[in-house]
Amino acid sequence: MSNVLYYAPGAASFLVHWLLIETGLPHELRLVDTASKAQKSPEYLALNPNGVVPTLVLDGKPQYEAAALAMLLAERHPQTGLAPAADDPRRADYLQWMFNLANMVQPLFRQWWYPHEPAGEAQAEAVRSHCAARIEAQWDRIDAHLAAHGPYLLGEAVSVADFYLVMLMRWSRNMPRPATEWPQLAQLAQRLKARPSFAQLYQREGLTEWA
Amino acid sequence: MSNVLYYAPGAASFLVHWLLIETGLPHELRLVDTASKAQKSPEYLALNPNGVVPTLVLDGKPQYEAAALAMLLAERHPQTGLAPAADDPRRADYLQWMFNLANMVQPLFRQWWYPHEPAGEAQAEAVRSHCAARIEAQWDRIDAHLAAHGPYLLGEAVSVADFYLVMLMRWSRNMPRPATEWPQLAQLAQRLKARPSFAQLYQREGLTEWA
Ligand SMILES: N[C@@H](CCC(=O)N[C@@H](CS)C(=O)NCC(=O)O)C(=O)O
Ligand SMILES: N[C@@H](CCC(=O)N[C@@H](CS)C(=O)NCC(=O)O)C(=O)O
Repeated sequence: MSNVLYYAPGAASFLVHWLLIETGLPHELRLVDTASKAQKSPEYLALNPNGVVPTLVLDGKPQYEAAALAMLLAERHPQTGLAPAADDPRRADYLQWMFNLANMVQPLFRQWWYPHEPAGEAQAEAVRSHCAARIEAQWDRIDAHLAAHGPYLLGEAVSVADFYLVMLMRWSRNMPRPATEWPQLAQLAQRLKARPSFAQLYQREGLTEWA
Repeated sequence: MSNVLYYAPGAASFLVHWLLIETGLPHELRLVDTASKAQKSPEYLALNPNGVVPTLVLDGKPQYEAAALAMLLAERHPQTGLAPAADDPRRADYLQWMFNLANMVQPLFRQWWYPHEPAGEAQAEAVRSHCAARIEAQWDRIDAHLAAHGPYLLGEAVSVADFYLVMLMRWSRNMPRPATEWPQLAQLAQRLKARPSFAQLYQREGLTEWA
């Protein structure tokens, strides 16, 4: 059965799309027009009750959560070597970093992009200014980890967690201090951008910024 | 080598502690005095640079992220049946729910418990009042899922995702509308509370509320 990725250019779907390309799983793309709030339409909410992108229809069944889908695609394609399996000594670190990014970093970007959500429109500016400093503290922490244990999050070899991190780094590109101001993070992004899948992803999503 | 859980009663460590009991993995407990900010001491930050609980020292190596640790413990003890393996048809749903809770629900509780974080002390009340409604919307969504596909998040059988959800539900106990006001959620909590591990967890952490 067919696989369909519902995406918006550069959104959280970017991670899933990137893994689809890396794994070579055949799929179609369907653009979700977030400008017209298509992600809140009854048709889309029937696929994904969270009303966000991505959704990946996998073998006919809609699934969501970008990080979960990226892990799933990689573990179904062990030849990619991107998902340390249950018996891999890096397994604990792999799960740790995936959840660390999902729970402690990505939610800050939600506040950055949707600053009215925590406390209403009147507080949006206050949220944004607090948020920038909080995201910078995360880059400090992760850069220090890479300096000690890199060049990748899990050490010598790339994993799904690095793709996830680079997507989040990309989201900081127009912030006062983009993630690439941190040297280890900048190097990590360079490595990931050098993969042929990155150019293909940019071309397919029509992206130009941060290329 | 020995396993040590750094915990605070009822905190995110609750999930990891619960899984330690369910899996029977031998371990010691070490209380982190969050009242005196022991989680921000240099000694603790050397174990967990996020400065939060839990940390689990596993075979001598410190690891963090409650959701990741719960998954790891369960997959290392397949006899518990709590972690659908890579070849299980419920695998996609399992990963989806773990990340849905980690990315879309737990961060709202961070705002509820630390309402000064998004925009400063002056906005704490505004954050809290927005937050309550946002958490209620999550209970609506999850309760509807359980009504259609329950009684557990993955259907007929319990998984780590349910333990995680019940911990988050517990955190709402003193909110204007606690999660147990939603009927399917209330039933799920009843089922999980009926497990012998729950009584043991309460006893070991010295908990009484929401018993
Ligand atoms: N937990 C979700 C969050 C996805 C998310 O926040 N997507 C954003 C774009 S990056 C979105 O769809 N925003 C539109 C909206 O919230 O209405 C995931 O990681 O897949
Ligand atoms: N992403 C972490 C978050 C843990 C967390 O926020 N823990 C809280 C208690 S529930 C904490 O340690 N708070 C003290 C602090 O932030 O200083 C996890 O899920 O393990």
